[in-house]
Amino acid sequence: MTAFLEEHAAQVEQAAARIRDHVCRTPALTTDLDQSIRLKPECFQVTGSFKPRGAFNAVLSLVARGERPRGVIAVSSGNHAQAVALAASSVGIPALILIPEDANPAKVAATRALGAEVIQEGINFANREDRLREVMAERGYTLVHPFDDWDVIHGQGTAARELLEDAPDLEVIAAPVGGGGLLSGSAISAKHHRGSIKVVGVEPVVADDAYRSWQSHSIQTLATSPTTLADGVRTTHIGERNFAVMIEEGLVDEIVTVSEEEIANAVAVAWSRLHLALEPTGALTLSAYLSGKLPQGRAGLMLSGGNANLQTVSTILGK
Amino acid sequence: MTAFLEEHAAQVEQAAARIRDHVCRTPALTTDLDQSIRLKPECFQVTGSFKPRGAFNAVLSLVARGERPRGVIAVSSGNHAQAVALAASSVGIPALILIPEDANPAKVAATRALGAEVIQEGINFANREDRLREVMAERGYTLVHPFDDWDVIHGQGTAARELLEDAPDLEVIAAPVGGGGLLSGSAISAKHHRGSIKVVGVEPVVADDAYRSWQSHSIQTLATSPTTLADGVRTTHIGERNFAVMIEEGLVDEIVTVSEEEIANAVAVAWSRLHLALEPTGALTLSAYLSGKLPQGRAGLMLSGGNANLQTVSTILGK
Repeated sequence: MTAFLEEHAAQVEQAAARIRDHVCRTPALTTDLDQSIRLKPECFQVTGSFKPRGAFNAVLSLVARGERPRGVIAVSSGNHAQAVALAASSVGIPALILIPEDANPAKVAATRALGAEVIQEGINFANREDRLREVMAERGYTLVHPFDDWDVIHGQGTAARELLEDAPDLEVIAAPVGGGGLLSGSAISAKHHRGSIKVVGVEPVVADDAYRSWQSHSIQTLATSPTTLADGVRTTHIGERNFAVMIEEGLVDEIVTVSEEEIANAVAVAWSRLHLALEPTGALTLSAYLSGKLPQGRAGLMLSGGNANLQTVSTILGK
Repeated sequence: MTAFLEEHAAQVEQAAARIRDHVCRTPALTTDLDQSIRLKPECFQVTGSFKPRGAFNAVLSLVARGERPRGVIAVSSGNHAQAVALAASSVGIPALILIPEDANPAKVAATRALGAEVIQEGINFANREDRLREVMAERGYTLVHPFDDWDVIHGQGTAARELLEDAPDLEVIAAPVGGGGLLSGSAISAKHHRGSIKVVGVEPVVADDAYRSWQSHSIQTLATSPTTLADGVRTTHIGERNFAVMIEEGLVDEIVTVSEEEIANAVAVAWSRLHLALEPTGALTLSAYLSGKLPQGRAGLMLSGGNANLQTVSTILGK
């Protein structure tokens, strides 16, 4: 085991202790579909996705280091927004979330309901990074990056750590990959648990930057944010720290891609056979499993969240 | 505590030990919807509903008493069929299931896939009891009744028993009521745990026989099997043993009824907020909670199953 892996696994362990009173320990479910697989349904996590694991670890670590921030700031139209809002309000600091104007109003309302200030005016996908830097400068708030941040990565790694405590004999761990926060955290926990575990990232074929980055051993970037059912992995490239874990250190064995049809099918199977209401991103690993794209062996599927658009899901289930 | 309650609670405890290797211990979930409630999602039970708890206890008890049956027989178009099929095949005896001709073909296929023989020809809701007696006489098979059977009741009681082990401070336990198997088993476990727990049954307003039986202190029967989204509780009356537990012994405090609209709303909330894919019957207790019909206090909701008709659910979610 490398010093890199030892050090980061120790930090995941510290993250688990730090966030324990703020997040759920989600169960490791079995399923009639296949007795050999185990499911980690992060849809049952607070706010309905795994994101609070990283957000709480980041915010609590800032406070623990004595850098009590004036406030925290994040750019997100989805699960990270709610996670940062909840983590900030739990420690009593302001949260400001920049959300693109075209975001789902229900998610904006959920973020505000968690006590965050939301800025939408004039924010779009193209200008959001620039607007972020302006607002950070104005307010003096600290950024909580959605994936390219060690505290966030260590927090996300607590989910796979729990799964392997509950099911220590797993041979494969699969996680969705957008920016790479959950996948790199999972890889640290899995490879520390046992070096022979295969760690697999899953992304939509229309958002195959991680796949191409893994193949080319360099960060590849999509020209535009892709249109996919799996709207949680629309980031155009993985982060540098995520690249270091996944590819430079070789802790991810493989990245596989799934079609939109395979994702839709997995959402329907999740309802009908697993009885889980997953958002399409949350069904990516199930999609790879159902399509026969995972390595042989007892597999643990990270199901990242459940905050689905009901209209989308209704259409998928009605087909 | 009465001798009746002591004796039946002891039998639930024995049932828990007897069925342990055959069923799942489903988790007790928390939810952002309300920090004070706990969910018992029996959709994650083997075959997707609580029914195997009772079916395994009945079949294993028959075998343990030395009455190794030539086979077992059941009448069901739904979850009980799959449960009996699985329990019989697990102990290596034949199962014969009578399913009405108009049943969902997917459920028939699932029952056959579990190794059961299925008879559908000429079976309808009106004649099924007569046909059952004929076939029992021909084959010499033993009936596994879906609810009016002590072994079945004790098996079903193991779900509430687990929930109260995980969440001992609950003040209310709510369960759906059709024939009364789950409700009477839950009542035994809950009142044995603490006499002051309120036990509440929930049924559709269009299937209010249990409500009227509770009010009148005598078994009331619906003229016909009702048409309701909650197709798991279409039985026309509760069983005699269930009546004894629920009403004669007073172990159920209240029966409440919910409208079809309230049931549909609960299915949508289960998806969007609980991230659980429930069948409408499985959402009955959630429906009563959302409608403000449960007593005050920390409530445990028995969510009985997840084997939904996808078309029905798609329609509900799309509204």
